Amino acid sequence: MGMFSEELLREARPIWKKFLPHRFLKEVAEGKISKEAFARWLVNDYYFVKNALRFMAILMAKAPDNLLGFFAESIYYISQELTMFKENAEKLGVELEGEIDWRAKAYVNYLLNTAYAGSFLEGFTAFYCEERAYYEAWKWVKENLKEKSPYIDFINHWSSEDFRKYVERIEEILNSLAEMHGDFEKERAKKVFLEVSEFELLFWDIAYGGIEYGGDKTSKGEDI
Amino acid sequence: MGMFSEELLREARPIWKKFLPHRFLKEVAEGKISKEAFARWLVNDYYFVKNALRFMAILMAKAPDNLLGFFAESIYYISQELTMFKENAEKLGVELEGEIDWRAKAYVNYLLNTAYAGSFLEGFTAFYCEERAYYEAWKWVKENLKEKSPYIDFINHWSSEDFRKYVERIEEILNSLAEMHGDFEKERAKKVFLEVSEFELLFWDIAYGGIEYGGDKTSKGEDI
Amino acid sequence: MGMFSEELLREARPIWKKFLPHRFLKEVAEGKISKEAFARWLVNDYYFVKNALRFMAILMAKAPDNLLGFFAESIYYISQELTMFKENAEKLGVELEGEIDWRAKAYVNYLLNTAYAGSFLEGFTAFYCEERAYYEAWKWVKENLKEKSPYIDFINHWSSEDFRKYVERIEEILNSLAEMHGDFEKERAKKVFLEVSEFELLFWDIAYGGIEYGGDKTSKGEDI
Amino acid sequence: MGMFSEELLREARPIWKKFLPHRFLKEVAEGKISKEAFARWLVNDYYFVKNALRFMAILMAKAPDNLLGFFAESIYYISQELTMFKENAEKLGVELEGEIDWRAKAYVNYLLNTAYAGSFLEGFTAFYCEERAYYEAWKWVKENLKEKSPYIDFINHWSSEDFRKYVERIEEILNSLAEMHGDFEKERAKKVFLEVSEFELLFWDIAYGGIEYGGDKTSKGEDI
Repeated sequence: MGMFSEELLREARPIWKKFLPHRFLKEVAEGKISKEAFARWLVNDYYFVKNALRFMAILMAKAPDNLLGFFAESIYYISQELTMFKENAEKLGVELEGEIDWRAKAYVNYLLNTAYAGSFLEGFTAFYCEERAYYEAWKWVKENLKEKSPYIDFINHWSSEDFRKYVERIEEILNSLAEMHGDFEKERAKKVFLEVSEFELLFWDIAYGGIEYGGDKTSKGEDI
Repeated sequence: MGMFSEELLREARPIWKKFLPHRFLKEVAEGKISKEAFARWLVNDYYFVKNALRFMAILMAKAPDNLLGFFAESIYYISQELTMFKENAEKLGVELEGEIDWRAKAYVNYLLNTAYAGSFLEGFTAFYCEERAYYEAWKWVKENLKEKSPYIDFINHWSSEDFRKYVERIEEILNSLAEMHGDFEKERAKKVFLEVSEFELLFWDIAYGGIEYGGDKTSKGEDI
Repeated sequence: MGMFSEELLREARPIWKKFLPHRFLKEVAEGKISKEAFARWLVNDYYFVKNALRFMAILMAKAPDNLLGFFAESIYYISQELTMFKENAEKLGVELEGEIDWRAKAYVNYLLNTAYAGSFLEGFTAFYCEERAYYEAWKWVKENLKEKSPYIDFINHWSSEDFRKYVERIEEILNSLAEMHGDFEKERAKKVFLEVSEFELLFWDIAYGGIEYGGDKTSKGEDI
Repeated sequence: MGMFSEELLREARPIWKKFLPHRFLKEVAEGKISKEAFARWLVNDYYFVKNALRFMAILMAKAPDNLLGFFAESIYYISQELTMFKENAEKLGVELEGEIDWRAKAYVNYLLNTAYAGSFLEGFTAFYCEERAYYEAWKWVKENLKEKSPYIDFINHWSSEDFRKYVERIEEILNSLAEMHGDFEKERAKKVFLEVSEFELLFWDIAYGGIEYGGDKTSKGEDI
C-alpha cells in the first residue's frame, strides 16, 4: 500500500504542481523578482513563521511522551528562522512588521485551529505538509538558481541538508503515526493535507499583492 | 467616557458603513438578488452558523460561573438556526452542503482561534461584533423591504425582537466585562472588533462569488 | 465482539463495584446521611456540574457537524441542573459556594484537559463515563430508597426517564464513533474510561471529608 | 506598591513556609531519604516535567510575538531535564515509567487547564510559581547539604546559576506583563499563584506515598 506520506503527496500533486514552481519561485531563481514583491512575501512569511511556532507548540501539548524531545528541538530550530528574517530584512531595508495579507491570516488561523480542535494526526499532517512544501519549493529555487541572489540566506536555509533531515524526520513520524490509525482518521487527515496544500498555493500569490475586496464601494452606507 | 460597546462601534464605523447596507442586503430588500447569489450566501452562512456554535462553545468553556447559564441558553438559541437553514434550503431547492468559499473559512478560523488563544474579553468582543453586525444588517433589510420576499424567514429572524434582546444582553455583558479590565486588554479587544468587522464586510462579498486565485496557471509545474 | 460501551463497562467493573453502591449512596437511600456530609457533597457537585458544562462545551467545539444539535440540547439540559442545586441548597440551608475539595478539582481538571488535548473519541468516552456512572448511582438510590428523602429532587432527576434517555443517546453516539476508529484510538479511550471511573469513585469519598495533607507540619520553614 | 512577583511571594508565604524546607528536602540534604521515597518522587517528577513542557507549549501558543524566542529557548532548556531523569534513573536503578500518584495528576491537569482556559497572565503566573518554587526548594537543599549525595545532579541543576537566571527572566517578564494589566486580572492571577503553591506543597508529600482512597471497601457492590 505504501507510505501514508506518499499517498498524501500523490493526491495533492495537482495542487503542488501549481506551485512547483510558482511564478514567485521562478522569479527568485532568475533574479527577476521585484523588491516590492519580495518585501511583501518577507513580511507575510515572517508573520507565518511566528504563527507556525505557535502551531507547533499547540501540537507539542498534545504529543505523546516520546515526541516531546522532537518538538522541543524542532521549535527551537524553527525559532532561529526569526533571526534570519530580522537580519535579512535589515540588510534588504524592509520593515518586517508590515501589513499582513488576509490570505496569510486565513492560512495561519486554519493551522492554529486544526492544531487546537483536530486530532493529533490531523495536526501533524498539516505540519508535514507545510514543511515539506517549503523544502520542495526552495530546493527547486536552489537547483534553478541562475545567478548570485540577494535572497541566498532563505534559499540556502530551506534547501539545506539540515532542513531536509528535519522534514524527513517529520515524515517518518507521520508514517508511523498513520500506521496506528484506522481509515476514518486517515481520510480526515488527507483532507487536511489537501487544504493546507491549497493554502500553500494561495500564499505564494501574496507577493503579487492585492485582491480588491471590501463590499459595495459605491454605497454611502447608513449610520448605525 | 461612555460604554465600551459604543467606542467599538464608533471606531469601526468606517468599515460598518461599507456593509450597512451592502449590495447583497440591498438586493435582498429589493427582491433583485439572483438565486445563485443567494444560494452561495446560504451555503456559506450555514457553514458559518455551525462554526459560530463551536466558537460560542469555546468561549463558554472559559466563561466565569455566572455566565454559564447565558451561554447554555445562547448556544441552544443559535442552534435552532440550523433548522431554519435546512427548512429554507429545502423550500428554495438549494443543496446546503455546497462548496465553502475560503473567505468564509478565513473568518471562521479567525473566530475559533481567537476564542482558543485570546483572552475571554477578546473572544467575547468578537462574539458581540458578529451578532451585532448581523442584527444591524438584517434590520436594515427588514426596514427597507420592498415586497414579499422568499427569504422572509431569515429577514424576520435576525431582525426580531428576540434577536434584538439577545444582542442587547451580549452588549450588557461585554460592557460590564470591559469595566473590569485595564486599557491594555481593552485595546487588544478593540483590534479584534476591527478585524471581525473586516471579516463581516468580506463575508457579504461571497455571494457574488469567486475571486480567482491559484498561482501561476500557465506553469506546467514540476513533479515532486 | 459487542458494543464498545459494553467493553468499557466490563473492564471498569472492578472500580464501579466500589461505588455501586458507595457508602454515600447507601446512607442517602437509608436516610442516614449527616447534614454535613450531604452539604459537602452538594458544594462539590455543584462545582462539578459547572465544570462539566465547560467540559461539554470544549467537546462541542470539536464535534462533527451532525452532533452540534445534540450538544446544544445536552448543554442546555444539564445547565438546568444549576437551578436544581440553587433551589435545593436554599431549601436545605446550605451555602453553595463553599470550599472545594481538591479531589473534585483533580477530577474536573482531568476532564477539561482531556477535552482540550485528547482526541474527540477520548473526550466523548469520558463524557459517557461520568454521565452513565451518575445514572447508575442514583438509580440505585431510587430503587433502594427506604423513606421520604429531603434529597428527592436529586434522586429523581438522575434516575429519571429523561436522564436515562439522555445517557442512552450518549451511548449510541459513542458506539457509532468507536466503530469508525481503529484499535489504537479505542485502547486510548479505554484508559480514559478507567481513569474517569477512578475519579468517580474518589468523588464520592469527598462527602466524608478531609484527607489531611500539607507537608511537614512540624517544620517551621524558612523565609524565602 | 512593589513588584507583582513580590506581592505574590508575600501572600503565598504561609504555604511556601510549609515546603521550605519540606521533610523530603531535609532528608535529601541530610542523606536520610529512603530509596523508595526518592524513587517515588523521581517517577512522579519525571511525569511532572513532561507535562510542564506541554504546559509551557500551550502558553507559548498564546504568547505575544516578542516572547516566542524566550519560550522556544525555555522549552528546549527544560526538555533537557528529561535526559537528566533518564540517566539518573538508570544509575539509581529506578524504573521511570512507574505508577503516577493522583496528586501529581491533579497538579498537572490544573496547570494544563489553566494554560488552555485561563488568561495569558494567569498561565504565566502559574509558570513563575512552579519554577520559582523549584529553585527555592533545591537551593535550600544545596545550601544545607550535609554530605556527598547520590542525587547531586538534581540538586545541582535546580540550584544552578543557569536555572537562577532562567527563573529571574521569568520573573522579569511576569512583572512587566502585570504592569500592563488591571487589578481584576491581577487578582485572578494571584489566586492561581496560591493554588499552584498548594499543589507544590502537596507534591512533596507524594514521596511518602499512599493516601488510602477508594470508597467503601467493605461494600460488595452491585453489578451494573
